[in-house]
Amino acid sequence: MKALILSADNFEDQELFYPLNRLKEEDIIVKVASMKHGIITGEYGYSIDVDMTFNEVDPEEFDILILPGGKAPEKVRLDEKALEIARHFIRGNKPVGAICHGVQTLISAGVIEGRRATCYIGIRDDMKCAGVLYEDQEVVVDGNLITSRHPRDLYAFGRELIKKTRKSL
Amino acid sequence: MKALILSADNFEDQELFYPLNRLKEEDIIVKVASMKHGIITGEYGYSIDVDMTFNEVDPEEFDILILPGGKAPEKVRLDEKALEIARHFIRGNKPVGAICHGVQTLISAGVIEGRRATCYIGIRDDMKCAGVLYEDQEVVVDGNLITSRHPRDLYAFGRELIKKTRKSL
Repeated sequence: MKALILSADNFEDQELFYPLNRLKEEDIIVKVASMKHGIITGEYGYSIDVDMTFNEVDPEEFDILILPGGKAPEKVRLDEKALEIARHFIRGNKPVGAICHGVQTLISAGVIEGRRATCYIGIRDDMKCAGVLYEDQEVVVDGNLITSRHPRDLYAFGRELIKKTRKSL
Repeated sequence: MKALILSADNFEDQELFYPLNRLKEEDIIVKVASMKHGIITGEYGYSIDVDMTFNEVDPEEFDILILPGGKAPEKVRLDEKALEIARHFIRGNKPVGAICHGVQTLISAGVIEGRRATCYIGIRDDMKCAGVLYEDQEVVVDGNLITSRHPRDLYAFGRELIKKTRKSL
C-alpha cells in the first residue's frame, strides 16, 4: 500500500510528519511530492526530501492522499498537476486526509462542493463559499474524505485515517 | 489507561508530540509533567501546557512513561523526583519509551545498566559508560524498555510502544 503527500515549503510540520510516521507504522510506503526536487522546509523548521515532482506522480500507483496544512497549500493549489492528482483520489473514492489549510487544494480542484468537512477556522468562510458543509469538529469523515482543523486534532485525524485505510485494503 | 511524559523547555518537538498524539489515538490519557507549572516550548517552537509538576505526580496512577529528547532531559535528569518516577516505572516493569536524549534521565536514575537500548548517536558513549548494551537500531525493545535514536525513527518507536501498551492491558 502506498500513500502520497502533496506539499511545499512552509508546510505545517506536525501535519506532515504525524501522518507520514503514522502510515509508516502500518507498513505503508509514503512518498512526498512537490513542485520541484530537493528539500522542503516546514514553518517550524523541520525538513524533508521531496521524492518526486507533481509531474512525475502517477496517481494510479497510490492508495491514499494526504494534504497537510501550513502555508504550503496556497502554492500547491496553483499547480494544475497537483489539482489533477487531488481529483483522481476524490473521484476514485480513495482515502483523502486533509488537515488545516490542506483543504485549499480541494477547493481549487473543485471537488469539495456539497461535502461535509472541517478546516482551520481562518478559512472556514472560504470553505462555505466553496459549497462545503463546514463542521467545527476535531475530525469529520464524509465517505473517503477525512478532515481536521489543526495539529491538536492529529490524534483524531490519525485514528480515522488508519480506520479508512484498513477498510480500503 | 494513563501515560506520563516527563519533559521541560527545549524538548524535541516531534518526540513529544508524536507519542502524545499516538497514545491519544488509543484513548489513553496523556499528562505532561515538568519542574514547574506553565508552558514548555520545544526546540522548534511548539508549546504545550504542563499538567503537573514532578512533585505532584503519583506514579502509581500511570501505566506508561514517555521520555522525549532534545535538550530537556539535561534538566529533567537533575530533578530527584523525576528520577524517582523513572525508577518506579523501570522497576515496576511498566512500559517506558525513551527516544534520542530521553535516556539521559534513565542513566541518572541508575536503572539502565545491563539493558539493551539505543539513543541519539552523540550520547552513545555515555550510554556505554553507564553499562548499556547499545545497539544502532531504529528501535530496541528490551522487556518494558523501548528506545529509539531520533525523530526519523518515530514510526518504529510508535509501533513498538503501542504493541507494548496493548500487552500490558
